[in-house]
Amino acid sequence: MDALVIHAPGDLRVEDVATPQVGPDQLRVRVRAGGICGSDLHYFQHGGFGTVRIKEPMVLGHEVAGVIEEAGSAVRGFAPGHRIAICPSRPCGACRYCQLGLQNHCLDMRYYGSAMRMPHVQGAFRKEIVVDSSQAYALAEGISDGEGAMAEPLAVALHAVNRAGPLLGKAVLVTGCGPIGAMLVIAARRAGATLVVVTDQVAQPLRRAAKVGADETINVAEHPEALARFGAEKGRFDVLFEASGNVHALTGAFDALRPRGIVVQVGLGGEMTLPINTIVAKEFDLRGAFRFHQEFATAVDLINAGLVDLKPLVSATLSYRDAGRAFALAADRTQSMKVLLDFD
Amino acid sequence: MDALVIHAPGDLRVEDVATPQVGPDQLRVRVRAGGICGSDLHYFQHGGFGTVRIKEPMVLGHEVAGVIEEAGSAVRGFAPGHRIAICPSRPCGACRYCQLGLQNHCLDMRYYGSAMRMPHVQGAFRKEIVVDSSQAYALAEGISDGEGAMAEPLAVALHAVNRAGPLLGKAVLVTGCGPIGAMLVIAARRAGATLVVVTDQVAQPLRRAAKVGADETINVAEHPEALARFGAEKGRFDVLFEASGNVHALTGAFDALRPRGIVVQVGLGGEMTLPINTIVAKEFDLRGAFRFHQEFATAVDLINAGLVDLKPLVSATLSYRDAGRAFALAADRTQSMKVLLDFD
Amino acid sequence: MDALVIHAPGDLRVEDVATPQVGPDQLRVRVRAGGICGSDLHYFQHGGFGTVRIKEPMVLGHEVAGVIEEAGSAVRGFAPGHRIAICPSRPCGACRYCQLGLQNHCLDMRYYGSAMRMPHVQGAFRKEIVVDSSQAYALAEGISDGEGAMAEPLAVALHAVNRAGPLLGKAVLVTGCGPIGAMLVIAARRAGATLVVVTDQVAQPLRRAAKVGADETINVAEHPEALARFGAEKGRFDVLFEASGNVHALTGAFDALRPRGIVVQVGLGGEMTLPINTIVAKEFDLRGAFRFHQEFATAVDLINAGLVDLKPLVSATLSYRDAGRAFALAADRTQSMKVLLDFD
Amino acid sequence: MDALVIHAPGDLRVEDVATPQVGPDQLRVRVRAGGICGSDLHYFQHGGFGTVRIKEPMVLGHEVAGVIEEAGSAVRGFAPGHRIAICPSRPCGACRYCQLGLQNHCLDMRYYGSAMRMPHVQGAFRKEIVVDSSQAYALAEGISDGEGAMAEPLAVALHAVNRAGPLLGKAVLVTGCGPIGAMLVIAARRAGATLVVVTDQVAQPLRRAAKVGADETINVAEHPEALARFGAEKGRFDVLFEASGNVHALTGAFDALRPRGIVVQVGLGGEMTLPINTIVAKEFDLRGAFRFHQEFATAVDLINAGLVDLKPLVSATLSYRDAGRAFALAADRTQSMKVLLDFD
Repeated sequence: MDALVIHAPGDLRVEDVATPQVGPDQLRVRVRAGGICGSDLHYFQHGGFGTVRIKEPMVLGHEVAGVIEEAGSAVRGFAPGHRIAICPSRPCGACRYCQLGLQNHCLDMRYYGSAMRMPHVQGAFRKEIVVDSSQAYALAEGISDGEGAMAEPLAVALHAVNRAGPLLGKAVLVTGCGPIGAMLVIAARRAGATLVVVTDQVAQPLRRAAKVGADETINVAEHPEALARFGAEKGRFDVLFEASGNVHALTGAFDALRPRGIVVQVGLGGEMTLPINTIVAKEFDLRGAFRFHQEFATAVDLINAGLVDLKPLVSATLSYRDAGRAFALAADRTQSMKVLLDFD
Repeated sequence: MDALVIHAPGDLRVEDVATPQVGPDQLRVRVRAGGICGSDLHYFQHGGFGTVRIKEPMVLGHEVAGVIEEAGSAVRGFAPGHRIAICPSRPCGACRYCQLGLQNHCLDMRYYGSAMRMPHVQGAFRKEIVVDSSQAYALAEGISDGEGAMAEPLAVALHAVNRAGPLLGKAVLVTGCGPIGAMLVIAARRAGATLVVVTDQVAQPLRRAAKVGADETINVAEHPEALARFGAEKGRFDVLFEASGNVHALTGAFDALRPRGIVVQVGLGGEMTLPINTIVAKEFDLRGAFRFHQEFATAVDLINAGLVDLKPLVSATLSYRDAGRAFALAADRTQSMKVLLDFD
Repeated sequence: MDALVIHAPGDLRVEDVATPQVGPDQLRVRVRAGGICGSDLHYFQHGGFGTVRIKEPMVLGHEVAGVIEEAGSAVRGFAPGHRIAICPSRPCGACRYCQLGLQNHCLDMRYYGSAMRMPHVQGAFRKEIVVDSSQAYALAEGISDGEGAMAEPLAVALHAVNRAGPLLGKAVLVTGCGPIGAMLVIAARRAGATLVVVTDQVAQPLRRAAKVGADETINVAEHPEALARFGAEKGRFDVLFEASGNVHALTGAFDALRPRGIVVQVGLGGEMTLPINTIVAKEFDLRGAFRFHQEFATAVDLINAGLVDLKPLVSATLSYRDAGRAFALAADRTQSMKVLLDFD
Repeated sequence: MDALVIHAPGDLRVEDVATPQVGPDQLRVRVRAGGICGSDLHYFQHGGFGTVRIKEPMVLGHEVAGVIEEAGSAVRGFAPGHRIAICPSRPCGACRYCQLGLQNHCLDMRYYGSAMRMPHVQGAFRKEIVVDSSQAYALAEGISDGEGAMAEPLAVALHAVNRAGPLLGKAVLVTGCGPIGAMLVIAARRAGATLVVVTDQVAQPLRRAAKVGADETINVAEHPEALARFGAEKGRFDVLFEASGNVHALTGAFDALRPRGIVVQVGLGGEMTLPINTIVAKEFDLRGAFRFHQEFATAVDLINAGLVDLKPLVSATLSYRDAGRAFALAADRTQSMKVLLDFD
């Protein structure tokens, strides 16, 4: 069956990939929707990021949903015809970190469409995939495949929110309004933040953020001083979610963040030069947030219950056969938020 | 000006009470709406609760909103005509607990309409009241006086939620569906709970809880075994808010609460006989929740922003001149959730 | 080889029990010291506790240390001659709670010498035992077998301390000065408590508590009002470890515990009638503490490094052949703290 | 009476400074010992640090102890002849942060010997000083004045430990072994850390750290790769206290710090270039620690009770009349840890 295989930067091919046999506790799934993630774009544009590089052909993709075609003999609770979101994360369950409940730090993690280990872990942008039943999360009636595919990035945002602690009644700033930033707006609101402000340098994503509930959007390219008015009494915001990976976004928010403020760093960005004295004197708490674990189930629960609405974040849906065009579109922030692939 | 003064159980009178002069940092407020609270009912029905007893005539009431008539010379940010919710809690600011940020445990607390200290702290069920400007919280356009009066019980619920820690993605059980229980449903949902179940022994309040977002309501008088299906794998719920003060509600939920589950006890209820071995073996975390502090501001913020909707909880609004009938109605759980007094 | 087998209340026999073959990842251990625990005493005196009853002959004991006689082919890091403490807890590693890092709530726990499940889990009061290498913790030079056997109850105390959160600079009250209470004194001190007070109704254990670092010991049988002087400003203690299982010890400490004080309930004690209004109004945080998980390693580390000294808690050491006398002695609180069995 | 007044870099004079009248709630204190802090050295050597610069003559010093000469009429609990440590921190008690229990972030802080505000807050290196009784903490019999003067830097270390959360059973790395680093070793041990490793580039302070309880000391100038052996399984240390202000110390420890490891940054150091991707992917938690509040009382309690021993950290005691020599000595890390001034 068809799959999207990356061979080198810019060299993304539709190829025929065999579907393995279904084991007793596995499911064969007909993939129907996939979301293009920033890391997919990095593989496509640059062949990787940092020290992570494509060294062999790899199926891309880790944000997918589909319909079950076949269930192994030991599977309980799932049957052909059921629609599911697929969790791309497969921790070992046995290592030191898994036994601490920190599965995202598993010493033997397998994550779809990742070149971190060799051989690479093949991804999920393929018409058919075999998954463990523990990776399957049922989608409710009325939830589209595309929404199901967005459970994964929502889980990333929810994990970042969990890293921040309770948000009820808090004032929250989100810097960087890509898909994760926009989902952070949604997640922070869902978690009870009373003020949610989001910044970016591009107008289009900010318009979408306003649609999904941001109280205020700031285009820092046009209004570089706009955060200054949140600086009274050492800072108005309780929590900063940094989702741009841009050092100026991070440090530019420090005056607006109150003492003991929490910074959750989600965006990746190589080296950053930070004013350590400010971090010390204001006693900030800068926490990394990486992937997710239990939050995948929460993401699906919130989507299924209608407690979050991700649909306004879908900026385009293209056939997987148009992958090149879809990836180019996804990379254009003036037009795109989340670009979905249709695998039908 | 008129005030509602309790003299003895059942003896609630409309009396003329003088309004003091406005100090430099004070406001004179024309009270327009007041909510009848369980403690008001206790004074009315029994003359108090536990060791707290009416020993002198006392104006009742601590859930009120109104319009500013006069502002002291040093007041900033408020002016005549502004509509406000009034915070009834006045901690000293200087004691050991105030300096720890635990103002609700102030060693010298003054709380409206409370007979805990002698002389009693007079309450706010009066046509006119003078308050410190720090007690005033502006109401937004379109928010009714009655909603403003409900900021206080909402603050109680928000404080209980804060005691529970983050609720995003959690399964929450609320036992007891009086006004606080119902607001706990609203607050838990607002804080991101993915499952909110509420129990009571009376049908009417459960119907209102369903309207404000409970996923499931259980009449335990009719279905005493209904929680049993949440008992698999040592329990489904992460958090229990006990708002009934009934020992059977508390212990009846233990099988449905997972190990390390959090019980926030909000309901008062004298002595309770508890299975300590269960609390130990399942490592429950039973936390008292009492009044609030910063949550009053959060409550007004959430109401003003439309992030919570308390209107479905108002079961009746009567003139303060009908206080006797209003109190009787408030005591009848088959008919009433929150009964408001109109002071116009 | 010899083992101590309980058949019925008072019927404890030395019997010959076969030692199984050593698996690849297992160790055969010559047990040298065992500590008699309160639960061992319950089986001996009453045939169990609560609903847990002996239904078939069971080897008692879960506090043991010994020397390795044989190591399986896959074992790394251990060899014959090594002296070890043996962790009696064997969670499944795979269930919902193990994957949360809450192994003490494992859905399929096997704990030495426990009649909770049928067939019972056989215990470790035996001359020879085969254990998984993951249950073995090396003892340092100069640490006696008896100290090694006390790693288990120390782990219980450390777990209770971990449940309390940081103790540095805190004022701590321990009610009940059996072996766990005394180890709580040691553990609270080790964790940085600046005031450690311990109460009991018997003089002998209090004398030992003084030897291991309690700042003050109170015999509440002789001085029932002695805690009153800790009641100023709503209470002096930050944390209460309740290790007696006696409701009067628990509630008698409430006036001396500050608002937001933490109660860690370690002692088991059936039903307790508690003043819920006090728990609510002072916002206590009552937390159960049950067994341990990671704390076993910490216990051995602390013992090995000389950071705790448990030796003053050993009140007697008897041969396992004198088990009846040893158990009677262990039950006599006027004479005994920890009674050890010598298996040589 | 004599005081040590800084006029410009290198220009430190003994001058006569008048002692004010004692107010009703104040104490006149004969200062007897003072410790030279890094910030005192900065004023002496460079006239300040960052944007904080001496703009008028200022008495230096904030680590002092002495004996009460006169007590105001309203003072309770203190009398002439009592020996005390003096807390140099005077938050306003009323601002937003004081009312949150975050007094170290007071909007109107007055801290002895600080040029942060204008006019500067005069310091405590003077023979006689008038303090509020709330700044006084009684020293126990047998505690020297010098130990009392070290309560302040110990409070800084304790605050950093409190920022880290519980340390019982934790593996702790301290980078930078000045007086604060050495006190972090002491404080981490006191709080129950089972492994405490400390690094520096100079041998002398590491020798003192070994004396006060470090399990291992590493001279990274001589052994730059010595931390590598703590890198297995993503890192051995749970907590890093960074007390050098050196970016290489901080980032050089990242491989040895486990996922979700906590970094408490105590050292000041201008800008630092950090590998953000590592912080994100390992989900570190980088927390600033600045001054202290309640920890001053804890520091005195620990010193008084003999639960910490700071005496091995005193490398020299000189008369205040030799201040120039004392400051030069304090700046020489090959010879000095804590240099005390004798004001008799």
